[in-house]
Amino acid sequence: MKPLKPVVSLMLAAASVALSLPAAAQFAKPEDAIRYRQSAMTLMQNHFGRVAAMAAGRVPFDAKVAADNAALAETLSKLPWSAFVEGTDKGATKAKPEIWSQEARFKEAAEKMQGEMGRLAQAARGGNLDAIKSAVGPTAASCKACHDAFWK
Amino acid sequence: MKPLKPVVSLMLAAASVALSLPAAAQFAKPEDAIRYRQSAMTLMQNHFGRVAAMAAGRVPFDAKVAADNAALAETLSKLPWSAFVEGTDKGATKAKPEIWSQEARFKEAAEKMQGEMGRLAQAARGGNLDAIKSAVGPTAASCKACHDAFWK
Repeated sequence: MKPLKPVVSLMLAAASVALSLPAAAQFAKPEDAIRYRQSAMTLMQNHFGRVAAMAAGRVPFDAKVAADNAALAETLSKLPWSAFVEGTDKGATKAKPEIWSQEARFKEAAEKMQGEMGRLAQAARGGNLDAIKSAVGPTAASCKACHDAFWK
Repeated sequence: MKPLKPVVSLMLAAASVALSLPAAAQFAKPEDAIRYRQSAMTLMQNHFGRVAAMAAGRVPFDAKVAADNAALAETLSKLPWSAFVEGTDKGATKAKPEIWSQEARFKEAAEKMQGEMGRLAQAARGGNLDAIKSAVGPTAASCKACHDAFWK
């Protein structure tokens, strides 16, 4: 353990700053929250995209790959929201001010997407390509609806 | 479905570009791969950090929160590696050329970290704070070892 101490302390110090704040603000700095939510969106888009490509017939259907990617996309769909904390509407972000001024509408759009992503994951677990196809459209639509309203 | 078509097509087109490539190259552009792996690292660091903060006694221990965050960190620990494709050693990345010139060593370091993250997740599932404490150090050490060797 000896040669590793500096990095461990650094990590724990960083974590402590973040975590001693209220639950609504788990991030030390606004840019950390922005980076966190963008990271979650990047991964979600990638893994959803892999399922969508199968649904579109552009890559061969593999039930296990589809189920794994859809499950991961569902998990990721739950992450970004805690990072839309106050003070994170500026900087390297395309988040519109409406996220904070129309909080209930934003929450509804975010939950709609999470619901659709959950239904897609359920369809993919079932292993039926037609069910996956049926779920992909509404899921993509829920991504688009939220981006249209709340993304610059 | 009608008003949503453009975005859906766009997503599927993007996915198709990415996925019609060989398995080793799931990304349309080098910068997509770089962004993907950085996103996975960002999320993993965040969720590992939440567990580490509890292990350090800096935030109150909550067994469910620890288990959820450790499980998520374990899932995320598996993601970055497919994105270290050739041609992604340049641009907005701190990846050292040794990742590609010493591939076996990099793989070993990456697998070591995934193993430790798995052990941490297992400890967290058990709900015992002492077991979590024992697992956090080696996990952080495996992060540091890989970064020291392969990160600018």
